[in-house]
Amino acid sequence: MDIKSYITGFVDGEGCFLISFSLRKKMNLGIEVQASFSVSQHKRSKEIILFLHSFFKCGGVRFSKKDQNYKFEVRSIRDLMKIIIPHFRKYPLRTSKKEEFKKFAEICELINSNQHLSKKGLEKIIELSKNLNISGRKKYDRTDLLKMIAR
Amino acid sequence: MDIKSYITGFVDGEGCFLISFSLRKKMNLGIEVQASFSVSQHKRSKEIILFLHSFFKCGGVRFSKKDQNYKFEVRSIRDLMKIIIPHFRKYPLRTSKKEEFKKFAEICELINSNQHLSKKGLEKIIELSKNLNISGRKKYDRTDLLKMIAR
Repeated sequence: MDIKSYITGFVDGEGCFLISFSLRKKMNLGIEVQASFSVSQHKRSKEIILFLHSFFKCGGVRFSKKDQNYKFEVRSIRDLMKIIIPHFRKYPLRTSKKEEFKKFAEICELINSNQHLSKKGLEKIIELSKNLNISGRKKYDRTDLLKMIAR
Repeated sequence: MDIKSYITGFVDGEGCFLISFSLRKKMNLGIEVQASFSVSQHKRSKEIILFLHSFFKCGGVRFSKKDQNYKFEVRSIRDLMKIIIPHFRKYPLRTSKKEEFKKFAEICELINSNQHLSKKGLEKIIELSKNLNISGRKKYDRTDLLKMIAR
């Protein structure tokens, strides 16, 4: 058993590469962008979530009482760039998540080089996040987000 | 990338080991038991379903218009015993599905040795299928099934 390949297989089914946008008045462009990689499982499969945490050696694990789920989540852009993205480049996904991952990685690179702080960079991120899961406290579509920066 | 380990990881998230019971008046005990292994994905990830089919070289692939899903399914007890079960013994599951698989494999062995045709064997299968997904045209709980054989 090759555990790194197993993990790619598991994430191909159960993992989530997410770009979320939140309104933040204190920020220059009024919009904060956050990348996260997560895997959730019902508490009966808690072990695999703890295992992912110990394998990647980054991120954190939280329990949701509401969903009775354990979630392993990595939100640090540094860890995403240094640990998560290299893993899935070396052990590639095979489902439609492969394309999501490519866009996710591209967005992380933009954030990592601080391009999300410029209007042009943020617009590019919003465009790239098309067809990627978009979430936030409120849900905005791309058009709304682009209008918000433009103001 | 080790594809066999990848497949175990993917199945650990997305696979289903199912024992279903159907009422069949023509059968001696009135109940037919059917084991099946399946993996379903939305049509956007059709490729991985076709890949599983070509990898295991057994079973079939069906498209469900209703769910817009492709499903790879193996129902032949011979193929389950010769191909599917040995794979997951060599490349073991890690989530709670591991326990489901153990019971599934035990039930397949009982079916393969025709013990499902005796009252005692069928009762054992119904007991083992506790906590395993039970399905059928109608849903029966174990108590109902055991009563049906007892008649």
